[in-house]
Amino acid sequence: MTIRAYAPASMGNVAAGFDVLGAAFAPIDGSLWGDIVEVELADAPSFACVGPFADRLPHNPADNLVLKVKTYFEDAWRKPLPPLRIVLHKLLPVSSGLGSSSASAVAAAVAFDAVVGAHLSRDILLQVAARAESDASGAVHLDNVAPCLLGGLQLCADGRAFALPWPKELLVAVASPQLELATRQARAVLPREVPLSLAIGHAANLAHLVHALHVHDLPSVRACLRDLIAEPHRASLVPGFRQAQAAALAAGAWGCSLSGAGPAVFAVAEPQAAAAVADALIAGFAAVGVPAIAKVCGIDTVGARVLP
Amino acid sequence: MTIRAYAPASMGNVAAGFDVLGAAFAPIDGSLWGDIVEVELADAPSFACVGPFADRLPHNPADNLVLKVKTYFEDAWRKPLPPLRIVLHKLLPVSSGLGSSSASAVAAAVAFDAVVGAHLSRDILLQVAARAESDASGAVHLDNVAPCLLGGLQLCADGRAFALPWPKELLVAVASPQLELATRQARAVLPREVPLSLAIGHAANLAHLVHALHVHDLPSVRACLRDLIAEPHRASLVPGFRQAQAAALAAGAWGCSLSGAGPAVFAVAEPQAAAAVADALIAGFAAVGVPAIAKVCGIDTVGARVLP
Repeated sequence: MTIRAYAPASMGNVAAGFDVLGAAFAPIDGSLWGDIVEVELADAPSFACVGPFADRLPHNPADNLVLKVKTYFEDAWRKPLPPLRIVLHKLLPVSSGLGSSSASAVAAAVAFDAVVGAHLSRDILLQVAARAESDASGAVHLDNVAPCLLGGLQLCADGRAFALPWPKELLVAVASPQLELATRQARAVLPREVPLSLAIGHAANLAHLVHALHVHDLPSVRACLRDLIAEPHRASLVPGFRQAQAAALAAGAWGCSLSGAGPAVFAVAEPQAAAAVADALIAGFAAVGVPAIAKVCGIDTVGARVLP
Repeated sequence: MTIRAYAPASMGNVAAGFDVLGAAFAPIDGSLWGDIVEVELADAPSFACVGPFADRLPHNPADNLVLKVKTYFEDAWRKPLPPLRIVLHKLLPVSSGLGSSSASAVAAAVAFDAVVGAHLSRDILLQVAARAESDASGAVHLDNVAPCLLGGLQLCADGRAFALPWPKELLVAVASPQLELATRQARAVLPREVPLSLAIGHAANLAHLVHALHVHDLPSVRACLRDLIAEPHRASLVPGFRQAQAAALAAGAWGCSLSGAGPAVFAVAEPQAAAAVADALIAGFAAVGVPAIAKVCGIDTVGARVLP
C-alpha cells in the first residue's frame, strides 16, 4: 500500500511571537499547499525528489531532510524501518519563509509512522521532525514544525507546543515572492542584544496577544499583530516587503509582517477584505519588479495528515 | 459623612511579568492589608498622615501622593474638590515592594470619588492614580496601580490593564522584611540591554504563563513562575532573599521571587503548604539576621473599595 502524507505550509513568528509562535496555512479554495511524502514497502530502498522545487534540494540525497527524518524516526521507534520506496514531492519553495523544510520533515515523519503502523505519539513525531529540521536551520525551533504537524496556531515554549485559539473570522493573505532568503542569513542580521525596554515591550505585546486570543478581544488582537524584534532588521533583506506591507495595510489588513524569516509575507484580514489584501501584497512586490503569488488562507486546524 | 477608602497591598512583576504583571493581596484571615484614606467635607481643607509608617513619608505635605492625586483627580473631574478633611492611614511600609505608594494613591482616588459622588470610571481613576504614582517612581507603570484598584491578577500592556484568571486553589505567602529598597535603586542595577535569546525566553515564558492561566494548566503555571529578567540583578540588594527563596521552595512553594522590586518576597503555594512556606520565608530572612513578618494571602478579587 502506498502512503501519501501531506504537511502544510506554515509561518513562524506570526509577527508578535518571534521564534515562539507559528501557524499552519489552509488555502480557502480547498487546495493543498504543502509538501507530500509518498512511501511504500519495497524490495530495495530508494529515494527520489520530484516537483517544482526538487532541484533546489541538496544534491547528495544523504543530506536530504527526509532521510535525516528516517534516521531519527528509527531512533525514536527503536527499530529499523523496512526497505521503502520514498518520493518527496517538493511543492513548497525553499528558503521562502513558508516552513518548507518543516513541511518535508513532518510529512516524512507522518508517512513513516503510517506505512509501518508505528503509532508514535504526536509528541514523539514532533521531536523527530524538530531534530531533522534543526540540522537544516542550525537551531531547534518548533515554531514551524509544531503547527505543521499539529495544525492551528501554536505557542512553542519550554520545548513544547501549546495550541492557541485563532478567531474563525480572520483570514490570512500570504504572498510568496520569487526570492530566496536563507534562514541563517536572516538570523545573522539580528542584534545579539536588545534594549531592556524593547524586551519588556515585546513580552507585553506577546502576552497581550495570547490573552486577547483567549478572550476573543479582536481589537486587541489587531493592536498586537506587530513585530518589534526581527522585522526592523530583516525588512531590508526582502525587496518589496515595505511596499507590500503598506499596500496590505491600506487595503484593510489588521497586521502584516514577514512569514517566518521571509521573504514570504502574511497579512491578517477580515474575509471581505482578504482578496484585496492578497492583491495588494502582489502589487507591493510588483512595484519593485519582484513577481509574487498570493493565496488567501485560513488556519489549517488539522495539520499533517495521510491523504486518502 | 466620612468616607474610608481601602486599597490593598499588591505585588508587581509576579515573577514572570517584569513591569507588566501585578496582583493584589487579600490575607486569608480576613484582615485588611493596605492603606486607608479617610475624607469628609469640612469648612477648611486639612491633611494628616497617621499610622505606623506616617513618619516615613515626605515631610512637606505638598509632596505627599494623596495631595498629588487630589490635583490629578480635579483635572480628570474638571472641577475643584470642595474643602476636605483628609487623613491618610499609612499602614503599608514604604519602599517595601508591597505597592505602598500605589495603595495610598488608589485609596485617595477612590475616596475623593466617593465623597463627592463623582462616579468617574475605573479607567479614569486608574489614570489618575497612575499619574500620581509615576511622580513617585519616576515612570508610569501600571503593574501595582491596576491590581490595587481593580483587584485580581492584571496584565498591563499598551497603557491598559487586562484581568487574567488566577487559579483559586493557589495561595501566596508574602514576607515583608525590615528593610527598605527604593524602586529607583532597584531599577539602577538592571542592565540597559539584554541578550536577544533572553528577551525571547522571557517573552515565551510570560506568554506561556498567560496561556496556562487561561486553560488552567497548573503544571505549566508552576513551571512559568520564574523571573529571568530582574531577579538575577536584584537578588543581592536584598539580604536574605536567596535564603528565603530556597527555604520556601524546599517547603513546597511552586515559585518564589521578589514582590515588585523587593525587599518583600512572595511564594505561590497550595493551601496545605502555605503556612509552612510563610514560616520558611521568615526563617530564611532570620538566617541572616533580618526580622520579617509574613502573611498567607489569596488574590484580592475586589480591589480598592469604600469600607462600610
